[in-house]
Amino acid sequence: MHARLLAPSPASTAAASSSSSLPSAGARPHGASWKPRGPASAPPPSPLSLRARASMQPAAPMSEGKGGPPVHGVSNTVVGVLGGGQLGKMLCQAATQMGIKMVILDPLEGCPASSVCHEHVVGSFSDGDTVREFAKRCGVLTVEIEHVDAATLEKLEKQGVDCEPKASTITIIQDKYSQKTHFSKFGIPLPDFMEVDTLHSVQEAGEKFGYPLMVKSKRLAYDGRGNAVAQKKEELPSVVASLGGFEHGLYVERWAPFVKELSVIVARSRDSSTVCYPVVETIHKDNICHVVEAPAEVSDKIKKLATSVAEKAIKSLEGAGVFAVELFLTEDDQILLNEVAPRPHNSGHHTIESCYTSQYEQHLRAILGLPLGDPSMKAPAAIMYNILGEDEGEAGFFLAHQLIERALNIPGASVHWYGKPEMRKQRKMGHITVVGPSKTSVRSRLEKLMQSDTYVPKKASPRVSIIMGSDSDLDVMKDAERVLKKFSIPVETTIVSAHRTPERMYDFAKSAKDRGVEVIIAGAGGAAHLPGKYHLITINYLVILSISFVIIFVHGCPLFLTTYFLWMKLIVVLIFSPLSQMPKGIPVATVAIGNAENAGLLAVKILASRDPELSDKVVKYQDDLRDMVLEKAERLENIGWEEYLK
Amino acid sequence: MHARLLAPSPASTAAASSSSSLPSAGARPHGASWKPRGPASAPPPSPLSLRARASMQPAAPMSEGKGGPPVHGVSNTVVGVLGGGQLGKMLCQAATQMGIKMVILDPLEGCPASSVCHEHVVGSFSDGDTVREFAKRCGVLTVEIEHVDAATLEKLEKQGVDCEPKASTITIIQDKYSQKTHFSKFGIPLPDFMEVDTLHSVQEAGEKFGYPLMVKSKRLAYDGRGNAVAQKKEELPSVVASLGGFEHGLYVERWAPFVKELSVIVARSRDSSTVCYPVVETIHKDNICHVVEAPAEVSDKIKKLATSVAEKAIKSLEGAGVFAVELFLTEDDQILLNEVAPRPHNSGHHTIESCYTSQYEQHLRAILGLPLGDPSMKAPAAIMYNILGEDEGEAGFFLAHQLIERALNIPGASVHWYGKPEMRKQRKMGHITVVGPSKTSVRSRLEKLMQSDTYVPKKASPRVSIIMGSDSDLDVMKDAERVLKKFSIPVETTIVSAHRTPERMYDFAKSAKDRGVEVIIAGAGGAAHLPGKYHLITINYLVILSISFVIIFVHGCPLFLTTYFLWMKLIVVLIFSPLSQMPKGIPVATVAIGNAENAGLLAVKILASRDPELSDKVVKYQDDLRDMVLEKAERLENIGWEEYLK
Repeated sequence: MHARLLAPSPASTAAASSSSSLPSAGARPHGASWKPRGPASAPPPSPLSLRARASMQPAAPMSEGKGGPPVHGVSNTVVGVLGGGQLGKMLCQAATQMGIKMVILDPLEGCPASSVCHEHVVGSFSDGDTVREFAKRCGVLTVEIEHVDAATLEKLEKQGVDCEPKASTITIIQDKYSQKTHFSKFGIPLPDFMEVDTLHSVQEAGEKFGYPLMVKSKRLAYDGRGNAVAQKKEELPSVVASLGGFEHGLYVERWAPFVKELSVIVARSRDSSTVCYPVVETIHKDNICHVVEAPAEVSDKIKKLATSVAEKAIKSLEGAGVFAVELFLTEDDQILLNEVAPRPHNSGHHTIESCYTSQYEQHLRAILGLPLGDPSMKAPAAIMYNILGEDEGEAGFFLAHQLIERALNIPGASVHWYGKPEMRKQRKMGHITVVGPSKTSVRSRLEKLMQSDTYVPKKASPRVSIIMGSDSDLDVMKDAERVLKKFSIPVETTIVSAHRTPERMYDFAKSAKDRGVEVIIAGAGGAAHLPGKYHLITINYLVILSISFVIIFVHGCPLFLTTYFLWMKLIVVLIFSPLSQMPKGIPVATVAIGNAENAGLLAVKILASRDPELSDKVVKYQDDLRDMVLEKAERLENIGWEEYLK
Repeated sequence: MHARLLAPSPASTAAASSSSSLPSAGARPHGASWKPRGPASAPPPSPLSLRARASMQPAAPMSEGKGGPPVHGVSNTVVGVLGGGQLGKMLCQAATQMGIKMVILDPLEGCPASSVCHEHVVGSFSDGDTVREFAKRCGVLTVEIEHVDAATLEKLEKQGVDCEPKASTITIIQDKYSQKTHFSKFGIPLPDFMEVDTLHSVQEAGEKFGYPLMVKSKRLAYDGRGNAVAQKKEELPSVVASLGGFEHGLYVERWAPFVKELSVIVARSRDSSTVCYPVVETIHKDNICHVVEAPAEVSDKIKKLATSVAEKAIKSLEGAGVFAVELFLTEDDQILLNEVAPRPHNSGHHTIESCYTSQYEQHLRAILGLPLGDPSMKAPAAIMYNILGEDEGEAGFFLAHQLIERALNIPGASVHWYGKPEMRKQRKMGHITVVGPSKTSVRSRLEKLMQSDTYVPKKASPRVSIIMGSDSDLDVMKDAERVLKKFSIPVETTIVSAHRTPERMYDFAKSAKDRGVEVIIAGAGGAAHLPGKYHLITINYLVILSISFVIIFVHGCPLFLTTYFLWMKLIVVLIFSPLSQMPKGIPVATVAIGNAENAGLLAVKILASRDPELSDKVVKYQDDLRDMVLEKAERLENIGWEEYLK
């Protein structure tokens, strides 16, 4: 419960008096204290205007400039946020941990952020006067929603108010058509688009781009609102009408035949340096973000491409903060920009639990001129699931509560409840993030959570790949797959012959890591093959090209060869095999001849090294083996060898 | 800034009105909504007294009992906390994420928790009337400090107020002597102790327990306050005087010659089931917690013992919540209980960033009757460092800010600033948690943070162990160590002969995992040994006993043997070696003959599978190898083979 600007309470008086306990500027020589680097693009406000502003806001000591009060803790600067929804709330949560004061402007009493902020000013962020008055309370002004009064922000900037990101960025982004125009100017790949203002021009666009045709509102569009699809020309009039006609501005986009939707959160500091979060996949349902998988299951090449497109897009904008870049991945491995949000984003919720620095802390670091934090993941996999209103009012609360009840029973699941006063259908009421040691584990945990819901987690991509040069090795190599399946490890088994399908082998080796393969078990030639050449080709392709995973060789010698001929072959295999031929610097692991089971187990152990759940299973497996031997021993002792051998 | 009980503000009126938007009880059939399980020990309060209480607190809807309002989000129950320090603040942070309302009783306006709680009641938690009045606002009452008015809590419990943990537990724990008596009754191992009330009795104790002798205040002792050590009999009068004489109660303890201080956080639900967090090591400086390392570097056996002592201790107490159990590890591997805190604890701060469920969320889950969360770590290693006041006032703030500035530049470091209004020497002002992919990495990051501070991180324990049967293998095996050191991986190299030092081999195999070894590289016999027997013994000890790590064999054949004799030996080695002898179910990896470098690299790759930092280094290493080959190729092409071979 928080003091309100318009009706000062005893509490807000207390705020003023507590801030007076700060010593006056210059009381001690603190010249070495932190100064934020200059703003990203706008010239730094003159000391005069800063000082003038400071005198207007006794409750908000500034850390900028000389003569400011010494810094207590992480930062003295009061952060003002336009908007107090869940994003504002999570910003406040990050701020409270670092002892940073947040003031919120939001018209809704009891808005999510109001429960955690230092002060909630009840008022409209699209009203110029209110925003101007609000800005006096803050050292830096930021947004959690882009639909704010950008014109006022621009005026405030000219008066020296520090807005991050810049008003220019908000202006560009809040109009989706101007956003597209802007990014296309900077050479960012986009679906084709064009402005439309009459039925005739929409029909022209339809002829040009084909159908289905995407028709979009320029402004105030989010969560699928403001978008409509025309399947054919005849639908255009009704589609335009459903978007409120041409009055508020429409444009059309060529339908993007995407295979996945990706998102990259980019953080940009005041000195314009950037860091990017891992690429995630966003899965939508009825146009609303439903599930986010981190990291996305796409190739390293796609990850690099997506990250570079996202970074380039953000570098074209002005100001500091985190930005979400939503992207389409097309069938032909193109990355197209869908849209940008100049603020923390639904696709970055998972970072709270899964990354070293959450997107919320990162946004604060960026706008306050603090060093950017490490955006990488501290846990191997995370899935975020939005709690959307499934019904109105109490019925909706009841269903949400049932979902939460399941979530609280799932290991690694964290429940976020935004505390919105009203429940409505399709409203984002909270979210659940499941973090775990592997993609497989978080997916199976999510399945337990979702029950009747329609998101069916995709088939897990293989973590171990078993390959052999010919199906004659299969009789041996099948044991590896059997063991891996026993441990529920996603595995693929295929035939890749280095000398009969060299291109396939090359592609396999090139793509294995991208596809998520961590260990390769290669049947290194049956006894029927002359091993020398075969192995060297295998080594070339597999080992040199695919340097990032562990490779295990199995000498796939069929077990029925027990003659002198076999022994001679074996000796040849062993001496000319990778075992002796592998050059320094190219390590592979080799297991016993024909013992694919052990190759599988070795792969399990390697994967288990950072996965306690799996590790426990390995211990149990080996305990069982021990027990089996002990049982046999007991039986032998009890019945004697004569009986035993029968 | 928050409304105060004693002077209701417009804000608190708003709270009442917003709660009125809740539908009245029974408006919809929600019989299936969550009911907390019954309290751990006290009989459940009668519906009558509950309802009566509910009518007194319109702002605190209850989720318990039939006819309560339906649950919105995670829980409707308002949690009252006695104390609003940093522990209260972090409890509120966990609560706000889940949308749970917290009210705080603390005498200090602007106490840390006041910035995040739903309501801060300014008042004393050791005053009976205030606590009684406060309890009316809460659905469940808990503590973040044990020095509260336990007698009032006991009375309140009798009136049906739900206190978690129970007043009986607070009563036992707030008096350290009664705590010791209690735990000793339940068979928990403790240092010897006895009550003293005259100088004569202290001297008697000194004779009995020897010196140094620990003299302790029974009550109001924390962070080393209330403890004093007498080195000899002559010091006893001054030591007793330093503790304020016998008036407030003293007792003595036999000096515990500990090698480490450990701590286990135990969570206990309302139905008395428990889960335990990983054992951590606490490192104190001037009697105040300085650094916490998670997980502790002790053997699995010690971890199990520490956990079972902690669990047993907590099972002897009444009520739900998290409890910290501080333990001594003695030279002879005994675990002795030092003391228990009936609340979240400094040694569990790291759980916020490093565990699936933080101790704060866990405390809330426990006291609200929600399922307990997963206490295990989601990242491999964490270190927590307390930000203690290094000076009074502004000078102290300045030094703390310098420390924070360094922390913000360290990957994986999270800064917590409690926002205490006053800076004092040795006061806990905040803390920094560093999370990372390995103990080595978090320690080296902490070193950067600490600079001139006196905590010197201990030598990292080896992650890879290189062993060989005799020093004749060293010439080959040294290459493995060289590679591992190149990647800054802590490694040990030693001689363990399976047939000449079988006991040593047994001990080695038994203890390797406990000591943190993840991979063993074994020089599997020089060419000078008859391999069969040797290997079988090695396998027995290493593989069967130490099932939890990956083992790599190097055929340590000295390279100078290039004759026919060598080839014959090799054939023998290979055929009778683990390569062919290893039974199914016992996987080991084998690398090329004499190629210890590859064994080292393979170990690095295995460790890198969950450590992106290390993984990048491996990629760079292999890129360098490629570049070296390309350079050679260029040179050959440029100068021709005749010149090249010169």
